[in-house]
Amino acid sequence: MPVKTDSRLVQIRTAQHPLLREFRQVLRGERKPGAQSPERILLEGPRLIAEALRDGRQLEAVLFTPSGLAQQGAGLLPQLSKHVAVAQAPENLFALAADAETPSGVVALARPPETSPEKFWAPAEGLYLVTAGLQDPGNLGTLARAAEAFGAAGLARIGPGVGLWHPKTLRASAGSLLRLPARDYASPEAWMEEAQARGLQCIAAVPRHGRPPEEIRWQGRVALLIGSEAHGLPRPLLRASAEQVIIPMQPAVESLNAGVAGAILLYAAARARAARP
Amino acid sequence: MPVKTDSRLVQIRTAQHPLLREFRQVLRGERKPGAQSPERILLEGPRLIAEALRDGRQLEAVLFTPSGLAQQGAGLLPQLSKHVAVAQAPENLFALAADAETPSGVVALARPPETSPEKFWAPAEGLYLVTAGLQDPGNLGTLARAAEAFGAAGLARIGPGVGLWHPKTLRASAGSLLRLPARDYASPEAWMEEAQARGLQCIAAVPRHGRPPEEIRWQGRVALLIGSEAHGLPRPLLRASAEQVIIPMQPAVESLNAGVAGAILLYAAARARAARP
Repeated sequence: MPVKTDSRLVQIRTAQHPLLREFRQVLRGERKPGAQSPERILLEGPRLIAEALRDGRQLEAVLFTPSGLAQQGAGLLPQLSKHVAVAQAPENLFALAADAETPSGVVALARPPETSPEKFWAPAEGLYLVTAGLQDPGNLGTLARAAEAFGAAGLARIGPGVGLWHPKTLRASAGSLLRLPARDYASPEAWMEEAQARGLQCIAAVPRHGRPPEEIRWQGRVALLIGSEAHGLPRPLLRASAEQVIIPMQPAVESLNAGVAGAILLYAAARARAARP
Repeated sequence: MPVKTDSRLVQIRTAQHPLLREFRQVLRGERKPGAQSPERILLEGPRLIAEALRDGRQLEAVLFTPSGLAQQGAGLLPQLSKHVAVAQAPENLFALAADAETPSGVVALARPPETSPEKFWAPAEGLYLVTAGLQDPGNLGTLARAAEAFGAAGLARIGPGVGLWHPKTLRASAGSLLRLPARDYASPEAWMEEAQARGLQCIAAVPRHGRPPEEIRWQGRVALLIGSEAHGLPRPLLRASAEQVIIPMQPAVESLNAGVAGAILLYAAARARAARP
């Protein structure tokens, strides 16, 4: 006989409730700059939660507002295994567990996807995206979404900077970070040690003095390297790059946003690889 | 003898001060959906204000917080003509006149750039960007920035939706909207009447069932049409389009953000036009 979902709905009435404290802890942890490999990630909104379920990701807890439960409960509850804690909290307590400016009335905790080096480097001819020092979660999420869209084999995030599992990063990725193999590295050196052993060709995105995308050899096992919004790529990564690529543009515009620029270069890489595999 | 700037510094001490009310009025007006051709626009932050001054745009008023004045005053005040009202308000009153989440302590009022139809359509072979119904100011601003970066002749914004002069649109454009010829149209019909008389070839960005950018003829007087985040392009604009363009991507990704997708297509158009003028 199926478990009746209503029977296990936990009512949260104080900010000290252990389940609410768990949500808050995860929210705080993910907001810390440089946070790495958290034990749990926060999924905000019905769309991200639905994507996680579709990908077979195991949820640990789901928290609704009363109106969130009314709107999303019928769709979500039947998909949850009986091991998932399901709770409801009034708007003001729910707000403590959510990062979004316009909360949609449902958040969930899940284990983050984990990608071993073996799985990450399995594609022999993969295109990789590498970000170093990005500060803005919107940019990192945008890049993850573009990387998946353009067939990247994986995303390597080099710290410091905003984390892969910051709630805003996840949201901006529109779920791509739940699917795209992604790994976290504390420093350029940690990443280079792994990458260079695998014969990866690095292509550094630079603001000037590089070659346009159509003159770059994008075939084979290559990585596109995107640096931080304010400072660009750290020196060791520039030195390790065989090529430097620019986006040709009008001189009145100093630069494009890092997320947009990276997405354009991933697009250019994908088209070049499709034209001459 | 030069006017001593300190002597004309107006001290704002109440929310009812006429100058502060003017700032608030502009801020409110620009946030109204569908607001068109305002008499004044709000420039937030030293960067946007510096860009406006560099472009020779006349400011009408500048408002500082005490710390904003201490940090930016020395750089900005000498550039202002004596007709510009300069005021200072404490943080809590200044906040009423600013939209930014992290206010930088200085905002200004200016006349918006105006582009006549004659000036807008002057380039015989221009690439135009047309947006219809966009809701998100970040997307509209991102597109304006990309349009300028990739040499577009102009930007036509078709309502309803977020306005060209919404403070967040202007900020996301990083000043491009102060330079790029831009015109506002209330409806697809209003725009089509002007565009069709000029023999413009329309290329509609669609999520599927279109041709990849490299199969599109981007040369000559052409327009790239970008629809709203939720509903895409309105039917009359789709019907008016000679071509439909897609961005080829992996099926797991439903779509890209409208600003990113438009920027990629503008890049592709610019590269095609540069390769075969």
